Amino acid sequence: MVLVSTRNPLNIGAAARAMSNFGFSRLRLVNPYEPSFREARSAVGASELLAGARVYKGVAEAVADCTLVVGTTAARNRELHQPLRQLADGARLIRRRLASGRVALLFGSEKRGLSNEDFSYCHWLMRIPTSEAHVSMNLGQAVAVCLYEIARDAKATGKPEKHKLAIGAEIERITATLFEALQASGYVKPRAAGVTKEKVRRLVRRLSVSATDAEVLLGMLRQIVWKVEKDR
Amino acid sequence: MVLVSTRNPLNIGAAARAMSNFGFSRLRLVNPYEPSFREARSAVGASELLAGARVYKGVAEAVADCTLVVGTTAARNRELHQPLRQLADGARLIRRRLASGRVALLFGSEKRGLSNEDFSYCHWLMRIPTSEAHVSMNLGQAVAVCLYEIARDAKATGKPEKHKLAIGAEIERITATLFEALQASGYVKPRAAGVTKEKVRRLVRRLSVSATDAEVLLGMLRQIVWKVEKDR
Repeated sequence: MVLVSTRNPLNIGAAARAMSNFGFSRLRLVNPYEPSFREARSAVGASELLAGARVYKGVAEAVADCTLVVGTTAARNRELHQPLRQLADGARLIRRRLASGRVALLFGSEKRGLSNEDFSYCHWLMRIPTSEAHVSMNLGQAVAVCLYEIARDAKATGKPEKHKLAIGAEIERITATLFEALQASGYVKPRAAGVTKEKVRRLVRRLSVSATDAEVLLGMLRQIVWKVEKDR
Repeated sequence: MVLVSTRNPLNIGAAARAMSNFGFSRLRLVNPYEPSFREARSAVGASELLAGARVYKGVAEAVADCTLVVGTTAARNRELHQPLRQLADGARLIRRRLASGRVALLFGSEKRGLSNEDFSYCHWLMRIPTSEAHVSMNLGQAVAVCLYEIARDAKATGKPEKHKLAIGAEIERITATLFEALQASGYVKPRAAGVTKEKVRRLVRRLSVSATDAEVLLGMLRQIVWKVEKDR
């Protein structure tokens, strides 16, 4: 991660924090605004990562040991001379390259982004797909989004939890008990009892009740029935 | 986007900026630290979006018109009572649901995150896959990463879901009425009333109640309550 000409100490801190969150460790700063860097470094809770950040005079020195250099840009009103990739595609290439060498990801200053000269050190450029009306992102947030996407691991995305659904017998007990409560409460018109029971049955089945919840629901309904009938 | 008990004005501003970047427009604040909200709103460059942000007393009011409520959590050292999904999976479900109704995405305070009571209004929880060693993200960055993932492939949005789900206000009415019935029936131990109410709230949210069924269920429960209370 290479921050070029960053002004705001909070942004340096935010970039460092996002790096820790997503498991990256090398922070390099090119020509930072000196007081900002001092302030970021001495902030309460500043990380080891920030303490170990190195400062370089120019982009060339900062990316000297990298096999791939990628510049980030909002790409607004700018003529670009490098290929521009969307974050998702770019991140895939970066992941692949990280397996065999170092990759530098460059972020420019808050005001102007990276200069054309900075770009000239890049193999290609990358942009975060943002809304047309509000293209420009906060630096710390842009860093977080890029690192999230790079750290993304197809295999690690667990399947959504499937909860075990209640079996038919249990569902039918719920149906019957709810119907009993409704009958005892005067909800069911005697002449329409058959139709109402079917309605209740369909309704309970639309609720996709899990096995665990079925037991709880049944307990609740039984208590209600007990109370209603006792008082009659 | 619902921010609960946010302290830092910079984070409110950062959340608003990320929303603009990724094309979201409704910001709601539950119980924000008042001076922070004022400061965020009056900051130079504060957006229309921030000016239009609405403040609510509680989570229930803030999510009343939503058909899906999702809480975010770092899920560290906490016993969770709801299903937990990784961001990529959760975002997919949220995208699908957005085609047919409003979705609330909840973020808790910087220090403590969301409370168990806040969680009880959620259908499920979501976490950003971060490094084991540095789980906790900056609020503004977490918002940006979540919205980036939700806005991803906006064009590939799935088909709207078949049945229209009940909105939060309706679901909360069912919760309240069921609780009333349980209380009148002696199911609720007075000393555990708070815990039981949260349990009932979670259970009702696990049932995927459609808008039509919600009305029917509410009618049933009201009749039961009427009967139980009349006989007391």
